[in-house]
Amino acid sequence: MVMKVHGGVASTATMRVFATLYEKDLEFEFVPVDLRAGEHKKEPFLALNPFGQVPAFEDGDLKLFESRAITRYIAHAYADKGTPLVCEGKPMATVGVWMEVEAHQFDTFASKLQWELVYKPMFGMAMDAAVVEENEPKLAKVLDVYEARLSQSKYLGCDCFTLADLHHLPTLTNLMGTPLKKLFDARPKVSAWVADIMARPAWAKVLAMRSQK
Amino acid sequence: MVMKVHGGVASTATMRVFATLYEKDLEFEFVPVDLRAGEHKKEPFLALNPFGQVPAFEDGDLKLFESRAITRYIAHAYADKGTPLVCEGKPMATVGVWMEVEAHQFDTFASKLQWELVYKPMFGMAMDAAVVEENEPKLAKVLDVYEARLSQSKYLGCDCFTLADLHHLPTLTNLMGTPLKKLFDARPKVSAWVADIMARPAWAKVLAMRSQK
Repeated sequence: MVMKVHGGVASTATMRVFATLYEKDLEFEFVPVDLRAGEHKKEPFLALNPFGQVPAFEDGDLKLFESRAITRYIAHAYADKGTPLVCEGKPMATVGVWMEVEAHQFDTFASKLQWELVYKPMFGMAMDAAVVEENEPKLAKVLDVYEARLSQSKYLGCDCFTLADLHHLPTLTNLMGTPLKKLFDARPKVSAWVADIMARPAWAKVLAMRSQK
Repeated sequence: MVMKVHGGVASTATMRVFATLYEKDLEFEFVPVDLRAGEHKKEPFLALNPFGQVPAFEDGDLKLFESRAITRYIAHAYADKGTPLVCEGKPMATVGVWMEVEAHQFDTFASKLQWELVYKPMFGMAMDAAVVEENEPKLAKVLDVYEARLSQSKYLGCDCFTLADLHHLPTLTNLMGTPLKKLFDARPKVSAWVADIMARPAWAKVLAMRSQK
């Protein structure tokens, strides 16, 4: 039975799961959830994720939600397919640290900035300059740590591309289309890392899904 | 060489790591970081965690930070010691979902409420009633989902106590000492789960460390 991803092609959390499936060369069925109609806040979607957020995921009788738990499951369950994305033992512990950094350092500020600079304009809402002013220097400080990290290691978790890098792609790509691109461009190691991970063929497939919507 | 935990006895993230080590019956050395003096924002601590947050952790030459990455490492690396805390394969995928739920649903609201109702009074700062009013119903909604989940499963991740439960302990215990205790008490399954996990001997040891400071 083919795996199913319930979500939206422009949802950053859904894109994280698509990117993982394409990296792993796995077939899947995409089940669009009409976010504008609020389908994710109603049954039958709530049976898949009681918190009413996309994506939700099915692999046979296993039903999962929370994008980072889904990608971790796929990477471990299909370890022998496509790009490794995870490793074992002590190196995985360090990959795990940088997965937490994405979720608790990068995304904390990046997702607020993305809301103001990408989604609010898209929905015709007014940007709150104070939120941008508060969060931009915080994101810059996170990127200073990334610059130092990427001077020691080719990717964030280790010398290979892993989930720790992949999880950044949706929000990172959105921010690269805003004036905040300058924060990434100003840091040579970060800038090279951004160019490298955004150029991955699996990511191009995710962006193609989004542009075909 | 004995493992080292650098942190503070009243830091919720540090307490998460202590709880894991006690559950696993592992010896460790606690290296106190003087948070009031800002030691975590200076070298040599920044060499352990460039984000300047406690805890940091050492196991031989492996150095980690981010509490949830540390607990996951300990649980997997010392799988044969003490309480299992993690499992393998598909059941672990579901434990992983509920670990993400703790971090991205529960903690999002619980940590803001804890700041207003526990830490600000402790530091002699004025509570912001608007923040409490905004976040209390959001936490209540999360607990509604927990009530349903705990009707199907003894613990959040599966029928055994795992990291998905353990990660809640520090903030949960703090909130149980505030008027928000009523949110937990009002939900029978949640209330039984809270009583169960707070009664664990490993957790009593963590609280004893805090009260001896």
